[in-house]
Amino acid sequence: MSDNRESLKLRKIRFVYKGAEQEGTLIHENSGLLTIKLKSGYNIVAEKGAVEIKEESLEEAPQARSSKDTFIGSGPGKVTIVATGGTISSRVDYSTGAVTPSNDISFLKSTVTDLERRFTVELESRDNILSENMTPEKWVNIVRWVKEGLKKSHGVIVSHGTDTMSYTASAVSFMLEKQSGPVIFVGSQRSPDRPSSDAFTNIEAAIHFASAEIGDVGISMHSGNSDNKISLLRATRSRKMHSSRRDAFHSIGEEPMAFYSDGSVVINRLSKRPDDETVINDRLDSSVGLMYFHPSLSPEDLMNYSENKKAVILMGTGLGHAADRLIGPIREMTREGKQIVMTTQCISGTTNLNVYSTGRKLLDAGVLEMGNVVPEIAYVKAMYVLANYDFNDFGKIMKTNLRGELLTREEL
Amino acid sequence: MSDNRESLKLRKIRFVYKGAEQEGTLIHENSGLLTIKLKSGYNIVAEKGAVEIKEESLEEAPQARSSKDTFIGSGPGKVTIVATGGTISSRVDYSTGAVTPSNDISFLKSTVTDLERRFTVELESRDNILSENMTPEKWVNIVRWVKEGLKKSHGVIVSHGTDTMSYTASAVSFMLEKQSGPVIFVGSQRSPDRPSSDAFTNIEAAIHFASAEIGDVGISMHSGNSDNKISLLRATRSRKMHSSRRDAFHSIGEEPMAFYSDGSVVINRLSKRPDDETVINDRLDSSVGLMYFHPSLSPEDLMNYSENKKAVILMGTGLGHAADRLIGPIREMTREGKQIVMTTQCISGTTNLNVYSTGRKLLDAGVLEMGNVVPEIAYVKAMYVLANYDFNDFGKIMKTNLRGELLTREEL
Repeated sequence: MSDNRESLKLRKIRFVYKGAEQEGTLIHENSGLLTIKLKSGYNIVAEKGAVEIKEESLEEAPQARSSKDTFIGSGPGKVTIVATGGTISSRVDYSTGAVTPSNDISFLKSTVTDLERRFTVELESRDNILSENMTPEKWVNIVRWVKEGLKKSHGVIVSHGTDTMSYTASAVSFMLEKQSGPVIFVGSQRSPDRPSSDAFTNIEAAIHFASAEIGDVGISMHSGNSDNKISLLRATRSRKMHSSRRDAFHSIGEEPMAFYSDGSVVINRLSKRPDDETVINDRLDSSVGLMYFHPSLSPEDLMNYSENKKAVILMGTGLGHAADRLIGPIREMTREGKQIVMTTQCISGTTNLNVYSTGRKLLDAGVLEMGNVVPEIAYVKAMYVLANYDFNDFGKIMKTNLRGELLTREEL
Repeated sequence: MSDNRESLKLRKIRFVYKGAEQEGTLIHENSGLLTIKLKSGYNIVAEKGAVEIKEESLEEAPQARSSKDTFIGSGPGKVTIVATGGTISSRVDYSTGAVTPSNDISFLKSTVTDLERRFTVELESRDNILSENMTPEKWVNIVRWVKEGLKKSHGVIVSHGTDTMSYTASAVSFMLEKQSGPVIFVGSQRSPDRPSSDAFTNIEAAIHFASAEIGDVGISMHSGNSDNKISLLRATRSRKMHSSRRDAFHSIGEEPMAFYSDGSVVINRLSKRPDDETVINDRLDSSVGLMYFHPSLSPEDLMNYSENKKAVILMGTGLGHAADRLIGPIREMTREGKQIVMTTQCISGTTNLNVYSTGRKLLDAGVLEMGNVVPEIAYVKAMYVLANYDFNDFGKIMKTNLRGELLTREEL
């Protein structure tokens, strides 16, 4: 970790790089590479030899307002950051090279610095896990923290590992019946102590999104190749589509809700306005499964897996198909009251069980088709619907658009 | 079905459309829409009122050379089409609107018409199923038919349902140790008796690809928005990414091998040259599973599903992760000799179990990571490797690039 984080002093520098003299904050110095944050929010990463430092001074990090240093800035825009772990609050162990979770979110201070006059940001370190270990029980905790945050802030940011961020953000979206402000999930694909980290820009954008008049749950991550353009994706259409790129997140079949670059937010599509209050339904029924159809999947595989579950989301092929040999067992399961729900492993496009003979047989066997709802989101939604609605209404509610998860028209 | 198919007569017309006089073959007339095939191979679909037919004559379809009408054309390029079913040889039941499989592949004749001087195409109706019903046993039949076809033709086309076409094409690719010519899988997203069918152009392109000097297995399907541009995708990198678009197939992380438009093939990347002979290993071990990690997946779910399998491909999160609670059970399974193989549900990008603490624990528990191999392809490959190599070499062979399934560098 660089000095400025441990001491909470910022290394302000005036420097010459590629012939131009600029001012900024030296954030990292690692393996001969300097990371310098400019006032614009843009980071320069350059070899030490290529940067001539003309002047350097240590400045106090923005004034903390509580003894725990949990407040940063003193602007009118109030934002709460609920930190839950993940790469965005991880550290690299430079002896082994492994990335491990860390509950140190003080690095966030260096991000907020330039925004201190516009925002007051409260940091809450609530959990500290890599997101592959997130569970439905933990999603319920998060929506409760979000509700507390919305009581005292305009908007709430949840920092989270990217691996399962779409699952968690969707669960929070479903459990929020009303929300008085934006709820913005943010992660990063490289740890903040890597020179190429995307954490800083992602969070900076999240702070701006969390201050906008948005009544939705979104995901704030890098957009395409641009260094400083960030997308806000609707949680219930989002999916991690690449294991390592910083622009890993896409929204399926829908344009981003908003973009951020260079200090300003551009709303790309109409979003729900914030509600007058925040109301949550903090119940989920986790007896839901998600199964990927494949050519050797046997009736026994499907029935054994479904045994202790109330609903199983199938990721079928194409328009929502499964082999004929599974239709009998599916009919048996739906007769016993299990919900068998069909999505498509294509990811994009919609199911349509009325086109092919297989689809019609599946419908006749009691399968519920999810249209263009993304399979992972259908899985999360089923947990919410089972816990909060009459079981007899399961099919009707699953097919009703609740939080933008079902598109009337696919744009992409 | 239109008259020309039943009688094997072609309705040649001279017509005026949008002010231009052209010649072509009237392929369909349905719901007031005419589909006219031009000599270029391009189809015009237009309302009946917008087309003024100046002259019409019935012509014999190209001469059949056997009593079964299985040969079309008499050109020097010899191609065998192995028809297995799917939308490409399906029919719409216009009373119910449902699409059902059909073993009528005579419509292919109308596609080949313009190519009769260049090619001799032999049609073989081998199977007649929607591809959600394909199984590893059927993949073995297909590679045997392919071998027979390569004995008598330069190249072989396999027409197949699109739902599981990537699985089948990859299996055929692995089982073909040597191939004396191209093997081209082709499907369509709309049945040939729909005015908007993509079947004709896809097959026309497949015939050209099957005549090229390519020693690989590929998939010939529409490319992007263009009406007449077709991509040839490497089977072992292909994936159906949209449930209904005609450009549903993408190759993951790699550019197409070749393109076809307007009668010519453009090779986009170096491909393997055809071998001197065709050699197949027609064995697969189907005791392989494919399981999608999700936040409520329990150790019991995983262990029960894996019970009767020699290898299980996990579609993990991000760089190839699974929850901590699964690591103990995974260690137990690998100790008992089961192969647990990690891929990523992100689809794009590579696994890397050396970055995060979770990944290192998974490696230590005996997990084999598949890098950038697409999960479904890793699943098919495992069946091939289990059946044809020493079990002790499983890990080594799975991590060796055999048929282009493992990219040295991701291009996309």
